[in-house]
Amino acid sequence: MHAVIMAGGRGTRFWPRSREKKPKHLLDITGDKTLIQQTFDRVKPIVGPKNVLIVTGKKHARELARQLPEVPAENIIIEPQGKNTAACIGLAALHIIKKYGDGVMVLLPADHAIGNPEEYQKVLSAAIQATQQPEALITIGIKPDSPQTGFGYIEKGEALPAVSGREIFRVLSIREKPDTALAQSFVQSGNFYWNSGMFVWKASVILDQIEKFLPELHKGLTEIENSFGSTREARTVAAVYKNLPSVSIDYGVMEKAQNVFVLPADFGWSDVGSWDAVCDLALKDDKGNASTTDSQVIFEDTSNSFVYSPHKLTALVGVKDLIVVDTKDALLICKKGRSQDIRNVVEKLERKKMKKYL
Amino acid sequence: MHAVIMAGGRGTRFWPRSREKKPKHLLDITGDKTLIQQTFDRVKPIVGPKNVLIVTGKKHARELARQLPEVPAENIIIEPQGKNTAACIGLAALHIIKKYGDGVMVLLPADHAIGNPEEYQKVLSAAIQATQQPEALITIGIKPDSPQTGFGYIEKGEALPAVSGREIFRVLSIREKPDTALAQSFVQSGNFYWNSGMFVWKASVILDQIEKFLPELHKGLTEIENSFGSTREARTVAAVYKNLPSVSIDYGVMEKAQNVFVLPADFGWSDVGSWDAVCDLALKDDKGNASTTDSQVIFEDTSNSFVYSPHKLTALVGVKDLIVVDTKDALLICKKGRSQDIRNVVEKLERKKMKKYL
Repeated sequence: MHAVIMAGGRGTRFWPRSREKKPKHLLDITGDKTLIQQTFDRVKPIVGPKNVLIVTGKKHARELARQLPEVPAENIIIEPQGKNTAACIGLAALHIIKKYGDGVMVLLPADHAIGNPEEYQKVLSAAIQATQQPEALITIGIKPDSPQTGFGYIEKGEALPAVSGREIFRVLSIREKPDTALAQSFVQSGNFYWNSGMFVWKASVILDQIEKFLPELHKGLTEIENSFGSTREARTVAAVYKNLPSVSIDYGVMEKAQNVFVLPADFGWSDVGSWDAVCDLALKDDKGNASTTDSQVIFEDTSNSFVYSPHKLTALVGVKDLIVVDTKDALLICKKGRSQDIRNVVEKLERKKMKKYL
Repeated sequence: MHAVIMAGGRGTRFWPRSREKKPKHLLDITGDKTLIQQTFDRVKPIVGPKNVLIVTGKKHARELARQLPEVPAENIIIEPQGKNTAACIGLAALHIIKKYGDGVMVLLPADHAIGNPEEYQKVLSAAIQATQQPEALITIGIKPDSPQTGFGYIEKGEALPAVSGREIFRVLSIREKPDTALAQSFVQSGNFYWNSGMFVWKASVILDQIEKFLPELHKGLTEIENSFGSTREARTVAAVYKNLPSVSIDYGVMEKAQNVFVLPADFGWSDVGSWDAVCDLALKDDKGNASTTDSQVIFEDTSNSFVYSPHKLTALVGVKDLIVVDTKDALLICKKGRSQDIRNVVEKLERKKMKKYL
């Protein structure tokens, strides 16, 4: 039994805190620990610290090892470049098969937040048990509380016998991010869940599915597998990765595969997709203001505002609905609800080649 | 002929830039030079650099001397404590009489901005000429463009023969800051000017007026005058100042005196009374945004906002009507139109004894 934490994201939306060298999952954006530390802490009791694998890029491997000293060095799998989730998952599956012949793998994004870790652990344990069904691909579906257009959706079908006392359904369809009207109809029907990006399956099962639906990717993975343990392993991985198709596991496999199941979950999940999401998660005072605990902030006739400013005294006067993020070399002031547009700032910095701020 | 620059202000409204050690007039809040440097540069051509006196507090004398190297050290007059403008002006008058027997003195607040310095110099020259009338107290009245309630007003009466081709009127009344309705009636009448706090008169004339209307202050000033040049001068000034009445020259003398005249002026005057006033003076782009020239600021879908942030890259996203002031240890974000309330922040800092930010 293994947990595979996928730590490939860049997270430009958390600028100026997130930078090329410090993507979102390496930041303590929701609390004292970084998002990947929180992910590790949550899954550790289920699989044990030695069975946590992490797939990441070369740039972030050292910081990641520093943040997660309990993870054995050989468990940190380096991708020479990001090729979306299908390649990442395939590579992790190869490592598990090489070491143990086969095994259940729990796939987890590195940068999500969970309000109720106990419930999360129960759901994952049930999902692991559900992989005993032949060829099963288990998804974790989040009960939606609003018609979000930023997530994919999972449509449930026939109910199966409960697993560890929990509902489980056959999946009718996996849907890409919908428009607002479609999202509303999904939520109203009661048959759809948000696709959390968390999956549970056997390594051998997902490799078979990749072979079936993504033969080009599978061919590359086989080349890599054949180089394992040889002197040409690193060179082979680098050469093969360059030409791998970049495709998500959802689009490349899940939308087409049989034997996909969904475990509905309600454990306070957030993908922490933006500063607005961080604001939603933050503890607020009676005027809706929030600030990171260590900083000194004066809210003067101010409401519904969020301040991250650990290095200096910060005063807000007569404002509302602001997100303020102050770092050592850059300051962001953003209207709440507009944090998606921080990408435009990062793009401007890229165009102007202001690398020190990226 | 002397110019006396009154540099006693504290300027809490410019927090976090203004601090106890750096009041407004010592800051380059409107451009490359500090406000007092600009005041000095404007008046220097009229009276000559050696005839500029500056009255200030002990805390600021060294920085002031550094900013104004052309001013002789003995021209910097230290008040042991602030006692409003009547005492300040009286003390300066004593120094002029001691050194030169008598002389015209041009009284100038240290912290105002002037859009048209040439016009300003012409007005002051005419005002100096007008002091040849016996016992004349000359005020500079600013033509009002709106019913401001933050200024005092000067009511004109009978017109006198022009001085250097400029209108001059006898003053009917000097008014304290009015309420909105009164201010509106003042401006509509066409008979009122804003009281700029700039005055021109002979040293002997104002001392006579102080003797008449503020006898207690005059008694103290006489004690100080008698100590001039003796070993007990500093001690006497300190002891006398402690008990001097704290009163403005407007309230203490001008409202009651005869022979008060007003020269109407229109030279782009601003008292730079708040961050909002600084915003009004700043050069703006086509969306009404302004920033200090040297700093890197990205305005993303942002309008009518002002940024002072010399030390770091600053990005504003989806906001409007904001004033952002970032200093090394404190950050202010204030809604435009609310900059008067920055005082409340400073008061909070005082109550919490957070001295390092004061």
